Amino acid sequence: MSDPVRPQSTLDLVATAGRLREEVQASPPLTHCLTNAVVTGFTANVLLALGAAPAMVDIVGEAEAFAGAASGLLINLGTPTPEQREASRQAVTGAVAAGTPWVLDPVAIGVLPVRTALALDLAERRPTAIRGNASEILALAGRSSGGRGVDATDDTEAAAEAARDLALRHGAVVAVSGPVDLVTDGLRVMRIANGHELLTKVTGGGCALGAAMAAYLGAARTTGVEPLMAVAAATLVYTVAAEQAAAVSSGPGSFAVALLDALAAVTADDLADRADVREEAW
Amino acid sequence: MSDPVRPQSTLDLVATAGRLREEVQASPPLTHCLTNAVVTGFTANVLLALGAAPAMVDIVGEAEAFAGAASGLLINLGTPTPEQREASRQAVTGAVAAGTPWVLDPVAIGVLPVRTALALDLAERRPTAIRGNASEILALAGRSSGGRGVDATDDTEAAAEAARDLALRHGAVVAVSGPVDLVTDGLRVMRIANGHELLTKVTGGGCALGAAMAAYLGAARTTGVEPLMAVAAATLVYTVAAEQAAAVSSGPGSFAVALLDALAAVTADDLADRADVREEAW
Amino acid sequence: MSDPVRPQSTLDLVATAGRLREEVQASPPLTHCLTNAVVTGFTANVLLALGAAPAMVDIVGEAEAFAGAASGLLINLGTPTPEQREASRQAVTGAVAAGTPWVLDPVAIGVLPVRTALALDLAERRPTAIRGNASEILALAGRSSGGRGVDATDDTEAAAEAARDLALRHGAVVAVSGPVDLVTDGLRVMRIANGHELLTKVTGGGCALGAAMAAYLGAARTTGVEPLMAVAAATLVYTVAAEQAAAVSSGPGSFAVALLDALAAVTADDLADRADVREEAW
Repeated sequence: MSDPVRPQSTLDLVATAGRLREEVQASPPLTHCLTNAVVTGFTANVLLALGAAPAMVDIVGEAEAFAGAASGLLINLGTPTPEQREASRQAVTGAVAAGTPWVLDPVAIGVLPVRTALALDLAERRPTAIRGNASEILALAGRSSGGRGVDATDDTEAAAEAARDLALRHGAVVAVSGPVDLVTDGLRVMRIANGHELLTKVTGGGCALGAAMAAYLGAARTTGVEPLMAVAAATLVYTVAAEQAAAVSSGPGSFAVALLDALAAVTADDLADRADVREEAW
Repeated sequence: MSDPVRPQSTLDLVATAGRLREEVQASPPLTHCLTNAVVTGFTANVLLALGAAPAMVDIVGEAEAFAGAASGLLINLGTPTPEQREASRQAVTGAVAAGTPWVLDPVAIGVLPVRTALALDLAERRPTAIRGNASEILALAGRSSGGRGVDATDDTEAAAEAARDLALRHGAVVAVSGPVDLVTDGLRVMRIANGHELLTKVTGGGCALGAAMAAYLGAARTTGVEPLMAVAAATLVYTVAAEQAAAVSSGPGSFAVALLDALAAVTADDLADRADVREEAW
Repeated sequence: MSDPVRPQSTLDLVATAGRLREEVQASPPLTHCLTNAVVTGFTANVLLALGAAPAMVDIVGEAEAFAGAASGLLINLGTPTPEQREASRQAVTGAVAAGTPWVLDPVAIGVLPVRTALALDLAERRPTAIRGNASEILALAGRSSGGRGVDATDDTEAAAEAARDLALRHGAVVAVSGPVDLVTDGLRVMRIANGHELLTKVTGGGCALGAAMAAYLGAARTTGVEPLMAVAAATLVYTVAAEQAAAVSSGPGSFAVALLDALAAVTADDLADRADVREEAW
């Protein structure tokens, strides 16, 4: 049954997001994160607010087996110490062997050589999803030298072709964050126009979304939802909550607090009311 | 003089907690923490809110002497890098030599081998207190393989025997976190039913309590309060503040903020009004 | 044109602070931070709230080139792991070669030997500014053995001579935090009496000010403002925002949140209304 005013793809995503949200809350997916030192606390709090079970295990000798037992894995390269680089390789080995879905977030690659080399290497190991801003996605696709630090200096649509290429080359879902988020598996592309500019004023605003994707991919695996829809669903839940948080905030400090509250409270009806989604074939 | 409706043990704990709270605020105990990367900021803020002086010194070559000069020490094994593992050993050496009371928080042991080996080793070096959830306490006592990551998969009472065994074996106070917190020295056991479920929705909700215990043990040492009462007092102050915070929160984000406010503001009268404590001999 | 009741130096600083604030918001300075694990998230959020672009690049092999491309650099020695120590040396090399202004924050030196040696070494490499509490400044000047951990055990004025000596010896601006902040280049000294005691109850309250100084020094370089005024301007913006935050807070938790909101919202008029500044020649 179709809605008279909304396209079927929007309805599908809203329904899927509602279903995954419920699944995450009912059976918290153990979400293994190797992430950067700046955002690790905020990321764990985002996962807890969503109902997931975070575990920040980034120790050599522990990460491989743990990733094998986890529901989902995030590898975020924001502050890749030698210990974390080695633990990241181990975690990916464990995830690939066990079929654990995993997300690669190649933070600030392009200009920074250590993480760039690692990201290019890890991208060959079949991430389930790759998440970044436009500059990072362009850099990973070999089309630019990246942004300056964590800031995108390119806009989302400029990275659309690079996202498609990466998706097809690696068999991954690719998500490009920006004012309009783009999510593609190389064949279909979804554009999610929800969110709020305050997300760019809180450190970890993007990084924590990568963790949410890992959690939702974990829940999707047990419920038979395809990765494209899981990544888009995580994006929708996260960006709708951001809109709700912005509405009750006085600035970036209160926004970060309200975002956690909203992630815990956002309902399927909120998603339906606010979803601003467009899907196309390439 | 006994209260007509409350047992003497409750009155004793409330009085001790009020006294230690005052002591901590009047003479901030230098509280040395080696803790995990996820919660280090939140832990420091909890200590500051309580009136203590946090110092997160986890560097090899600095930790031993510093622990000797500190009032209390926390060793939390949540993200034990090689540097932290070595610094933890040094800090314990310094604490033991100087008589600094110290708390061992064996985060997520059981399933994760690196920290499990370290925890078993450190437990032999006479911690003043051991704090964990039921799964961690069972794992440290050799009775189970631990939970999954940081989540307890066992309930508090299931760990009561293990807690007693550990307490007697190591001469330590053992605290098991859960809906009802259990604190024992192997001879007496106190059950504190204060707290709020939102504590489990904030990363560091349990870890920061370990730091509070280290601070209160420091204050207890100078005032002649026994470790069992100091650990129980820290638990009472922390969990009563959590109740106050939950009453003014809209979700996990605002709860974490309100908890810090409440830790700074909670009064002896609040403790008396809300304390839900039971003490027994084994 | 002079104000009948306020000295010219106050008017100058207020005008400069307003101008740098505008510049930072219009052209976000890429602010490279190597800072401690306790405050890294809060520091990034302070920079974002001010309008700057934080980048926490503390990896060996990345830090040198990045510091050369950054607008400003902070080296904070709060938790100096071996990786961070080496990356700090690299970052300073990159900053010095490129003329990037850089701030040294010698956290807790004096009692802690590893960071003390590093701080003494880095101080020889011509920091643009040195920021610390009175105990840290005294220790860096060789006049005391430092405080206990991160707490100042000496008062700001006790460090005034040490600050002047350091400034003249190293050609740096030296800022001493305390109830009254002192900023000097060895010839002139500014005392800023703004701020609030709650800043001492939030971890990173001082550390994040060091990052704000690096951002403002970056903006000052492109606008021709001298370092003394840039460091004093960052202090004024930060401490006036702290006063505004304290006015709407219920404790240290809500204060930290409100501080971020206030840093994003504080206006040139607010600075003019609240500035409590005194300038003298030595």
